[in-house]
Amino acid sequence: MKISTLAEQIKLGKRRALAKGITLIESEQEKHQESAQQLIAELQDERDTMRIGVSGVPGVGKSTFIEAFGNVLIDAGLRVAVLAVDPSSPTTGGSILGDKTRMETLANREEAFVRPSPTSGTLGGVTKRTRETIVLCEAAGYDIVLIETVGVGQSEYEVASMVDCFMVLMLPGGGDSLQGIKRGILEITDVLVINKADGKQESMAQRAGAEYKKAFHLLKPKYEGIEVPVQLTSSLTGKGIEKTWKTIQDFIDTLKERGLFLKNRKGQRQQWFKRIAEERWLNLLWKNPGVEKELPSLAKRISNQEITPDQAANELLKHVKRED
Amino acid sequence: MKISTLAEQIKLGKRRALAKGITLIESEQEKHQESAQQLIAELQDERDTMRIGVSGVPGVGKSTFIEAFGNVLIDAGLRVAVLAVDPSSPTTGGSILGDKTRMETLANREEAFVRPSPTSGTLGGVTKRTRETIVLCEAAGYDIVLIETVGVGQSEYEVASMVDCFMVLMLPGGGDSLQGIKRGILEITDVLVINKADGKQESMAQRAGAEYKKAFHLLKPKYEGIEVPVQLTSSLTGKGIEKTWKTIQDFIDTLKERGLFLKNRKGQRQQWFKRIAEERWLNLLWKNPGVEKELPSLAKRISNQEITPDQAANELLKHVKRED
Repeated sequence: MKISTLAEQIKLGKRRALAKGITLIESEQEKHQESAQQLIAELQDERDTMRIGVSGVPGVGKSTFIEAFGNVLIDAGLRVAVLAVDPSSPTTGGSILGDKTRMETLANREEAFVRPSPTSGTLGGVTKRTRETIVLCEAAGYDIVLIETVGVGQSEYEVASMVDCFMVLMLPGGGDSLQGIKRGILEITDVLVINKADGKQESMAQRAGAEYKKAFHLLKPKYEGIEVPVQLTSSLTGKGIEKTWKTIQDFIDTLKERGLFLKNRKGQRQQWFKRIAEERWLNLLWKNPGVEKELPSLAKRISNQEITPDQAANELLKHVKRED
Repeated sequence: MKISTLAEQIKLGKRRALAKGITLIESEQEKHQESAQQLIAELQDERDTMRIGVSGVPGVGKSTFIEAFGNVLIDAGLRVAVLAVDPSSPTTGGSILGDKTRMETLANREEAFVRPSPTSGTLGGVTKRTRETIVLCEAAGYDIVLIETVGVGQSEYEVASMVDCFMVLMLPGGGDSLQGIKRGILEITDVLVINKADGKQESMAQRAGAEYKKAFHLLKPKYEGIEVPVQLTSSLTGKGIEKTWKTIQDFIDTLKERGLFLKNRKGQRQQWFKRIAEERWLNLLWKNPGVEKELPSLAKRISNQEITPDQAANELLKHVKRED
C-alpha cells in the first residue's frame, strides 16, 4: 500500500490501517523507517486532543482503572486510544502468570482502540515510538490518548514529558508508604489517584489522601498556583472514576487559561525534535563505513584489555569517514 | 592538584582523593571531563573485585539491608564501597520526609566508603558515571562495590549490565504480589532476596519464596543450568544476611568455573565503550558550529508549526559543519 493511501485510511478512522501504521512506525527495519517518517509528516496536523499519562507501580490496578475510566470517556461521547504497556518480557514475551485478556470491555467498544506496546528491551516500558503513535491515533480521530506506564523509573519522566496531564495511581496505605515514595514522582504528578479505595481499604485511602495533600504542600509545585488534586477511586465500585475525569478536565482548562497547555505542547515538540535528531545522528555513526571497518579490531583490543573503553571510543571517532 | 597525583592518592586509598575523583567524574563541565578521562585511564587496571547490584522497589528496605550486608562483608575482612542512590529529587533535592542519615553504622567504618549518587534528572537513579565510579573505587582498594538501584525501570537493566551479580530484594507477600511482578525483572535476577522476613511476615516470606522458586522454573534461565537462589533475610534480626553473602560467593564461583565471569566483564567493557563513543559523538553534534547556528531558527519554526520535528531533525543534520 502506498503511504499516502495508508495515511488517508488512517484519517478515515480505519482501525486496521491505524494498527498497520503503528506497526510500521515500530519497525526497526531501515526501509520501514523512511516510510514511517513520510507517514508521520502526512498526519501531523494537531487537533484538539488530550494526552493523559497513567502511571503507577505494578499491582496498583492500572489496567482495571483504565478500563473503567475509558468507558466513562466513551460514554461522554469521546473516542479513546489506549497505548498500554504490554506485560511481556524482553526475552520470552508474556506475563509471568499467563496473559489475562486485559481491558476486555474497553477493547470491544467501537469508540476505543487498545494497543499494547511491546516493551522489548525497555523494562518499565515506553517504546521509542510512543510520540509517533500518539500522532497516528489522533489523526485517526481519537480525542483522548491514554498512555500507560509502569514503575518508578526513567520511563515516568519520558511519559510525563509527552502528555498534557500526568496521572499517578497510588495504593491506599498509611504513612509508611509515603516513606518509600520519592519526591521525584510527586513533582511530576498533575493528578494523584488513590485507587482500590473500597471495602476495608477505604478509610486507609482517606488517610493516605490527606497525607499526600500535605506532602504536595511541602513540595515545589509543578505549576505555580495550581494544586495537585487527590482523587479516591475504586475500579470495582466505579467510585470516583467520573469525578477523576471532571478533575482532569478542570486541570486542562486551567492550563489552557494560563497559556500553559500550548506552551507545554511546544516544548514537547522541541524535545521530540532533539530526540529524533540524536537518533539519526547516532545512526550516522554506527553505519559509517570507517566505523564499521574499525569496530571489530577495536572490540578485540578492548576484550584483551590492550585499550580502555575510553581510549577505544576516542580511537573510533577518529575513523568516522566523510562522505565526500 | 595534578591528575597523576590524584590518581596516586586514590591508589593509596585516601578517601578524600577518591571523593574528589568521583566529583570530577560526575562534573558536567568540559574541562573536568578531559581530566576525568585521564584519571580513568590511569586507574583502569582490573583487580579481583566483585560488583553487586542491589535492586528493589521503594520500601523494600534496601538501605538497611545494605547496611547489615556491608557490615558482614567488612567483618569477613573485605573493604566495601557503596554507591547509593540518593533519595533526592531532580528539582529540589532531599527525600520527601526529610533526609535521615542513611547507613550510619556502615558509613562510619574505616573499611567502608558510602557515596550517594545525585540522581538529578534520572528518577530511578543510576548516574551516567556509575561505571567510572566503580573503576575508581576498585582502584582505591575496595574489594566489593555495591550499587543500589531503585524501582522497576530502565535503570535496573543498566545496573544489571554493569555488575557481576544482580541481587533483587522483594517484600514478603503472597501470590497476589507475584501478579504484579513482570518477567523482566526476574529474568535479570542472579540472587533473589526476600527481605523483612521477620515477625508476622516470616511465614508469608516462606510462601513467597516457594512461589518465586516455582516462577523461576517457568522462566528461561539467565544462565543455562544455574538456578537462581532465593534467600530470606531480615535486616532487623540479621537473619540470612551472612547466608546471602555465602550464596553470592557460590554464585560468583560458579560463574568463574564456567568462564562466564570474565566473559561478562568483557561484554560490559564493550558496552561501556559504545556508550562513551555515543556520548562523545552526540557532543560533536550539539557543539558543532553549523548546528549551533541553525538551532534557534529551527526551534522557532517547530514552535510555530511551520515544520514537523521530524523534518526539523533532517534539516539540522544537513547543517553539521566539517572541521576542515
